[in-house]
Amino acid sequence: MQEYSSKILENAINQISKLPGVGKKTAVRLALYLLRLSSEEVHVFTESIETLKNKVFFCKECFNIADTEICDICANIQRDKSQICVVQDVRDVIAIENTAAYKGVYHVLGGVISPMDGIGVNDLNIQALFNRLEANDIKELIFALPATTEGDTTAYYISKHLKIRYPELALTSIARGVSVGNDLENIDEITLARSIVHRVEFETAF
Amino acid sequence: MQEYSSKILENAINQISKLPGVGKKTAVRLALYLLRLSSEEVHVFTESIETLKNKVFFCKECFNIADTEICDICANIQRDKSQICVVQDVRDVIAIENTAAYKGVYHVLGGVISPMDGIGVNDLNIQALFNRLEANDIKELIFALPATTEGDTTAYYISKHLKIRYPELALTSIARGVSVGNDLENIDEITLARSIVHRVEFETAF
Repeated sequence: MQEYSSKILENAINQISKLPGVGKKTAVRLALYLLRLSSEEVHVFTESIETLKNKVFFCKECFNIADTEICDICANIQRDKSQICVVQDVRDVIAIENTAAYKGVYHVLGGVISPMDGIGVNDLNIQALFNRLEANDIKELIFALPATTEGDTTAYYISKHLKIRYPELALTSIARGVSVGNDLENIDEITLARSIVHRVEFETAF
Repeated sequence: MQEYSSKILENAINQISKLPGVGKKTAVRLALYLLRLSSEEVHVFTESIETLKNKVFFCKECFNIADTEICDICANIQRDKSQICVVQDVRDVIAIENTAAYKGVYHVLGGVISPMDGIGVNDLNIQALFNRLEANDIKELIFALPATTEGDTTAYYISKHLKIRYPELALTSIARGVSVGNDLENIDEITLARSIVHRVEFETAF
């Protein structure tokens, strides 16, 4: 027995429900929503996705998403090119840019080393990072990777490779600690432990 | 200051976040997911939506979504054409069809009367329902509308119009009551009250 009265609807629902975090029920809701829009509006929607896939560049320097071969951040002469912040993906660049607290450049790895998911060094933009350090005068590498085993492993792998080759290079990590506004009793033990070990001078803490 | 490094990405995120229930963060996640797919996969995705919008029919009889002018349910000679189940939208048809408990046909109103949202009688497929009753020998109209003021108002409006004109027509509503598997203490009072008023013979209850 057929579940939907229309194969076309069924096909659209199947496609939409492939999106991460979108189940069958949500897909039906989204399909019916799109059906209520005008043809013009639907075309603008699909065209924006086609354009995204076919027209966007990954920056040759840092692998950030860009409309040109070099992204706005790498092309900006006011950014400090000697400081590279290593992140997992483009979302992290967006998040850090929104803080307006960082004036260096980025390197988007495209993931983290994860043997469980079959993601190795060669699946990531790690060699490109090494090449970048080779070709430029980099003073500091800031790891802003997920606070997970995979994130830590990735930072460890990269730092191990670089430490001997560039003894002058500063290797740092974003601080792990108690989030602003959080009660101590609600923090997991590992984060709390790290925040004690990596305590900072009281006067610089605010 | 620009929030995203790419106008193309920004445009896609803006379009995706117009979908109901999709915020900016989810839109970023979906955009980056689509970006990781192959061009072919993205095209299959957008094409399925374009096709949905441009190739799908609304059944001339019942306004269900169909691949042809008359939907499979209305075209099926084994369905009882004298019984019409009145529903709010296509999702309700899908839900009722999945129960396999109903062998009649449907009428999709495309919404319910809601003065608050500016939805009146003429915005819905109500006149088409009256025409259908005029042209065919209908024995029963089953209201399967939302258990809300708007749903009740819509059923009331339709039933009031039909009662005098078709005194033989059976007007029924799907049962409101305690959901299977639910404890009584967790049920709201109105539902519980209705389930007492509309109690059924014990032997037919299971």
